[in-house]
Amino acid sequence: MADPRFFRAAGPFTVADLARLTGAEIGGGGDGELSLADVAPLDTAGPAHVTFLANPKYVPAFERTNAGAAFVHPDQAHRAPAGMTLLITTNPYIAFARAARRFYPSPRPPAGIAPTAVVDPSAVLGEGVAIAAHAVIGARVELGPGTAIGANSVIGDGCIIGSDCLIGPNVTVSHCLMGNRVVLYPGVRVGQDGFGFAMDPSGHVKIPQLGRVRIGDDVEIGANSTVDRGAGPDTVIGAGSMIDNLVQIAHNVVLGRGCVMVAQSGISGSSRLGDFVTVGGQAGITGHLSVGDGARVGGQSGVTRDVAAGGAVGGSPAVPIMQWHRQTAVLNRMTRKKDP
Amino acid sequence: MADPRFFRAAGPFTVADLARLTGAEIGGGGDGELSLADVAPLDTAGPAHVTFLANPKYVPAFERTNAGAAFVHPDQAHRAPAGMTLLITTNPYIAFARAARRFYPSPRPPAGIAPTAVVDPSAVLGEGVAIAAHAVIGARVELGPGTAIGANSVIGDGCIIGSDCLIGPNVTVSHCLMGNRVVLYPGVRVGQDGFGFAMDPSGHVKIPQLGRVRIGDDVEIGANSTVDRGAGPDTVIGAGSMIDNLVQIAHNVVLGRGCVMVAQSGISGSSRLGDFVTVGGQAGITGHLSVGDGARVGGQSGVTRDVAAGGAVGGSPAVPIMQWHRQTAVLNRMTRKKDP
Amino acid sequence: MADPRFFRAAGPFTVADLARLTGAEIGGGGDGELSLADVAPLDTAGPAHVTFLANPKYVPAFERTNAGAAFVHPDQAHRAPAGMTLLITTNPYIAFARAARRFYPSPRPPAGIAPTAVVDPSAVLGEGVAIAAHAVIGARVELGPGTAIGANSVIGDGCIIGSDCLIGPNVTVSHCLMGNRVVLYPGVRVGQDGFGFAMDPSGHVKIPQLGRVRIGDDVEIGANSTVDRGAGPDTVIGAGSMIDNLVQIAHNVVLGRGCVMVAQSGISGSSRLGDFVTVGGQAGITGHLSVGDGARVGGQSGVTRDVAAGGAVGGSPAVPIMQWHRQTAVLNRMTRKKDP
Repeated sequence: MADPRFFRAAGPFTVADLARLTGAEIGGGGDGELSLADVAPLDTAGPAHVTFLANPKYVPAFERTNAGAAFVHPDQAHRAPAGMTLLITTNPYIAFARAARRFYPSPRPPAGIAPTAVVDPSAVLGEGVAIAAHAVIGARVELGPGTAIGANSVIGDGCIIGSDCLIGPNVTVSHCLMGNRVVLYPGVRVGQDGFGFAMDPSGHVKIPQLGRVRIGDDVEIGANSTVDRGAGPDTVIGAGSMIDNLVQIAHNVVLGRGCVMVAQSGISGSSRLGDFVTVGGQAGITGHLSVGDGARVGGQSGVTRDVAAGGAVGGSPAVPIMQWHRQTAVLNRMTRKKDP
Repeated sequence: MADPRFFRAAGPFTVADLARLTGAEIGGGGDGELSLADVAPLDTAGPAHVTFLANPKYVPAFERTNAGAAFVHPDQAHRAPAGMTLLITTNPYIAFARAARRFYPSPRPPAGIAPTAVVDPSAVLGEGVAIAAHAVIGARVELGPGTAIGANSVIGDGCIIGSDCLIGPNVTVSHCLMGNRVVLYPGVRVGQDGFGFAMDPSGHVKIPQLGRVRIGDDVEIGANSTVDRGAGPDTVIGAGSMIDNLVQIAHNVVLGRGCVMVAQSGISGSSRLGDFVTVGGQAGITGHLSVGDGARVGGQSGVTRDVAAGGAVGGSPAVPIMQWHRQTAVLNRMTRKKDP
Repeated sequence: MADPRFFRAAGPFTVADLARLTGAEIGGGGDGELSLADVAPLDTAGPAHVTFLANPKYVPAFERTNAGAAFVHPDQAHRAPAGMTLLITTNPYIAFARAARRFYPSPRPPAGIAPTAVVDPSAVLGEGVAIAAHAVIGARVELGPGTAIGANSVIGDGCIIGSDCLIGPNVTVSHCLMGNRVVLYPGVRVGQDGFGFAMDPSGHVKIPQLGRVRIGDDVEIGANSTVDRGAGPDTVIGAGSMIDNLVQIAHNVVLGRGCVMVAQSGISGSSRLGDFVTVGGQAGITGHLSVGDGARVGGQSGVTRDVAAGGAVGGSPAVPIMQWHRQTAVLNRMTRKKDP
């Protein structure tokens, strides 16, 4: 059970509630009225808990679980302990994720403006907006209904933030148009100048950065990540993209829908990613490249050429992933010490 | 045109104004009195806009542009559309950068101290200083004329900050002596302890870090970058250096003038860079090294030996750049799959 | 001498004081009553200073130093200038570190709550707690005696922080149980959601992150580093671990005691490090791995397999360090240009 100092479960829910929520079918022992108090992993779940089996590696744990109910793929349903109530679905992990969110919805601070917040009188606040202590809201800012701004965060003049967004504490946002249900974790920096200047021995000359940042619906950006605004065009983060901690997104970068960027990865100026591109941890993509839909960029790789849709690359400089594995194998063969 | 929610152009300026500002000569159609309302790229510029041609790749766009005026190199001037007013200069990009800054000067907050800022009575504030909401200014801090401190930033006891600096929101500065016209973007951390300790199985023992950070004039440091103070000597950032986001500068590091560090690069303790060194994104330089004037360090490379002035290195561990290209080529040759 | 704008030495101390503090034996000129005003390096030390010799490279500087006293290994004592007072110990660096900390103890802000701090009435504050301007302390937070919270920092509901901790300015902490004497540098983010979601073409589904962060005694975490809370299990930072700037620690990661992570390194979800593991700068460890006690991970390496206790690895993907050196040597041999 999650530590009650920090979490409070919203249940109980019945098996029928969760079936309705996830589209799963009730099977096995099959008691739709069974009341479930919490979610739990296979090994610690008890009769009042719902669990799940997604990875075949965990079938033995599934066979032994004491959970009251479990999300499971139809092909694995027969491995369940006798009498257990099943929630049968072709994607048990997604279904479990939805159920877990029902038990533990994102906590939303109560509506209202903290007395110590500084809100420009020209700002337009939707219904149910929550602004925490010492937050600073600039001129002409618009906050959609249900949006929450964390303590000590600063929203610059003119920004538009949609509805039901969660802006964490100690965040800075400027020059940004943001969709709905966006989550910015603590310390995120959005909208500052891009790294654009004319190099000159008498002193580099900064180029004014005249674009914005546009963030689609349902985007999440991890702690201390940075997204620079465009130089003239906009920097764009497509709807549903998930960005981890300490990620760098340079000016004019465009991410499509549903992209995933793992921690400490970065994209240089003006590169464009299609939809559902995944970028591994500490990987880098140089500037002015195109990475196609569904491409996968390996961790720590350094992409210096375009990647086709569906492609997978690894290494620095990055090559097709199978070639990278061959590089690794060749080097290993040449240098593995034979013990006598 | 830049989004008026966020930007306001300062013009109009005449062609003659821009010629005076940049040292360009008026040519082509040659109307010095032509009034220009804004800057724009070649493809979207209209008769009231000034544009530029720097990269030969864009000559076709230059031949078709509808701009009223353009900065252009003397060698390319003959490619201009008939009758267009030219601003002829050997460095059109720098000249355009200067013009763009005239149209869009860095916005400076109005002078004054926000009522919610906390300023120690012993702080010395120059004329025109602006201190935003909830900023905290420590004892004996000195802020030069025209310097602005962003919302929720914290300037530690004793720091000296020069004139016309822009310290962004949510910044932390301590143990620092800073020149003029320095820009710190949101979330920058300057002056905290370096990572110095004596390792010991009974518990590492921290070494007091007794140096400072000295930052030269016209330095810019990007969002969420970190600059530790020296351990005894100072950490030094030379005048005019440009540092991108999420960069790490360790204790005792010395950067010369005009250095450029791209996002997510880092320098370990006590390494010294000469003037105009460029360090690519995600590159790392280990400790106690010397990198000479004008050297170039490739993206993601790992420098473990000194680099001579004018040198260029790549790879991890870094080797001379031509050798690194050969390494890459050899590996590719050995592993490229031949399609049947 | 450290700049008095920023530092104040706590001395003078006698040689006998320092001998008692460090367990060193007084030798050489041997005046236990000699009064020492400060610490200094070999080359700048004068008669009122204590210095040290740790690295044999500096024996010549040791032979010439004007220091009043020096920590030195018994084997090097005979190289001391005639008449100098010696503090003889088998670990002169540790002893000097302890002495330096006596001269320059971590400055502790005076106890008390700044009038602009916002402290929930249900928070429990130990004796001597210091809360700086604009800090925000959530409901049911517990702060141990002598702990200091920096300006503009935010401590989330329910957190427990031990005694004598130093939480820097602009820090965010949530969902965390922290030991004693922990130091968090500016901009650290602890306790936010881990990067956990079920990927789905119709939109990724975030998994509630229901664990905590547990931080042991004497841990230090560098500026702008990020530590996500666990997904169900906890994220754990073992006692005495030293974490540099811009480091990423993902959900469910476990660090043992005394681990060292250099700047910009990162650990993916659910990996476990033993005690006294060292991770070089910009290195990455992928998820679900085990790295044994005392293992050493080279800078920029990418660990994709378990590392045994005492092992050392380098390269990306990481291999045993000797093999990595052979890889480097082989590549160099194949590509080094012979100058004619």
